[in-house]
Amino acid sequence: MRVDFQSWISAHQVRFEDVLSRLLPHAEVAPQRLHEAMRYVVLDGGKRVRPLLAFAAGELAGTNEARVDVVAAAVELIHAYSLVHDDMPCMDDDVLRRGKPTCHVQYDDATALLVGDSLQALAFQLLAEHRLNDDAARQLEMIRLLAVASGSRGMAGGQAIDLASVGKYLTLPELEFMHIHKTGALIRAAVLLGAHCGSGMQGGSGLGPAQMDKLDHFGKLIGLAFQVVDDVLDCEADTATLGKTAGKDAESDKPTYVSLLGIQGARDMAHRLHREALETLTEFGETAQRLRELADFIVLRKF
Amino acid sequence: MRVDFQSWISAHQVRFEDVLSRLLPHAEVAPQRLHEAMRYVVLDGGKRVRPLLAFAAGELAGTNEARVDVVAAAVELIHAYSLVHDDMPCMDDDVLRRGKPTCHVQYDDATALLVGDSLQALAFQLLAEHRLNDDAARQLEMIRLLAVASGSRGMAGGQAIDLASVGKYLTLPELEFMHIHKTGALIRAAVLLGAHCGSGMQGGSGLGPAQMDKLDHFGKLIGLAFQVVDDVLDCEADTATLGKTAGKDAESDKPTYVSLLGIQGARDMAHRLHREALETLTEFGETAQRLRELADFIVLRKF
Repeated sequence: MRVDFQSWISAHQVRFEDVLSRLLPHAEVAPQRLHEAMRYVVLDGGKRVRPLLAFAAGELAGTNEARVDVVAAAVELIHAYSLVHDDMPCMDDDVLRRGKPTCHVQYDDATALLVGDSLQALAFQLLAEHRLNDDAARQLEMIRLLAVASGSRGMAGGQAIDLASVGKYLTLPELEFMHIHKTGALIRAAVLLGAHCGSGMQGGSGLGPAQMDKLDHFGKLIGLAFQVVDDVLDCEADTATLGKTAGKDAESDKPTYVSLLGIQGARDMAHRLHREALETLTEFGETAQRLRELADFIVLRKF
Repeated sequence: MRVDFQSWISAHQVRFEDVLSRLLPHAEVAPQRLHEAMRYVVLDGGKRVRPLLAFAAGELAGTNEARVDVVAAAVELIHAYSLVHDDMPCMDDDVLRRGKPTCHVQYDDATALLVGDSLQALAFQLLAEHRLNDDAARQLEMIRLLAVASGSRGMAGGQAIDLASVGKYLTLPELEFMHIHKTGALIRAAVLLGAHCGSGMQGGSGLGPAQMDKLDHFGKLIGLAFQVVDDVLDCEADTATLGKTAGKDAESDKPTYVSLLGIQGARDMAHRLHREALETLTEFGETAQRLRELADFIVLRKF
């Protein structure tokens, strides 16, 4: 029997917490303080949107959970490292994240720097040391995919563009270019890596290139929608609801979808992206149901 | 005809500069400032000790240069990122590196942070997207090796121990533990990755596990020797000769081999490590000649 979406999310979130706890170095292993800080920033936090997307894409591709667990963990470690570095004084200088003091506040700046660096290395270690695909060459392609999504032509590059844009007027295409890199690249990677796990597997559905392209497009649209919704929430919500310091964007004079389009314009855009994202999933029928539900979840979470 | 060591070094250094230039993103590709900064910190700097070790190990294993170029570049990118982050105000706060302003001085702190993050991602991208071994599973093992050497149980972990040791008295084994991680892990990885390139190759000598263990031990000893020599040089040299700010260690109250053993004791230790390193190479005969010469180069560079 099919479990309802909320139960599916909860079950995966609970199970995935165990997965992360198991894959992270124990806090008793030297250097203890570094490992404790790595666990502090990764465990017990966040909605795990990227892992959930990987799980849903993995279900679509007919893979087993154990493989998707590893790619979901790798993506989440990259995401966690980017938050730690992003919160540092030389970047956004944020003191609160997921309702807790940020890493450099709880520990110190140098530790936060090394925590981020170590989480990135661990992400690639996990992808290399676990069997993720019966075809090792395909697994290399998966590692390449995450590296590109994380690096200067992906997430880190998006952050560089973000920094350069403070106090500037951006056009809508420029803002989109920034977010496709900063947030979108990793969300797309989560969907694709989840799907890749199934493709080389006995009994996996073996998605073809055209289908992978559809999923990539879905990831791109939903990644953008995610950012638009974030901008709306940042503008509307108070700090308690958000679990991070609200109103930072306006305060730091960053261009956002709200500043360009207004609240209603940004909401409309989120809904349009959501509709287009659902359309890219049409051919997958029932197998894409979780991805559809996640698209709803991402866009409608607080509206 | 065999070229002499100095010509071998120079030829590789010149050629490798081209390799790095080709593998780094062009400065015209967006985000331009980030890519320009990545090139600034990687190109035209350093003796390229780790790449040279990889080339020498590759020669020993009978591999072709193109494969070792990629692993040497990956190791050098990890090394370069660690220097950029290490020099930042929240770590060593250094303004001079290889005779040039450090990255955060030339650009800014946020850019330095992203440069380091992007260089790490690029290192893993290179290892995943180029054919380094006829056996893709062996190539995954190579990626795992570099990830472990870079992360919390390798280089980054060593830096965490280093930070925690400022102002403390360390015993010799504690100091050794720190350096085996901080500097040693990446040097060992350079040797092993160079050797791995040959092992899965048609015509490669296919080193066995016992031989790889010997090379790993050689890397460990030479990595330690490298650090001991660095401590001696930091104490003796002036800033101009060193190309970085001299006397930083004593000034920042960091434990060093010189502070523990005195200058002469540290010199003696370097020579002992050097001798032991050469002994591990005995069985390799002529094929290990470049590794022997590099061991001489590393220990005797300024004594």
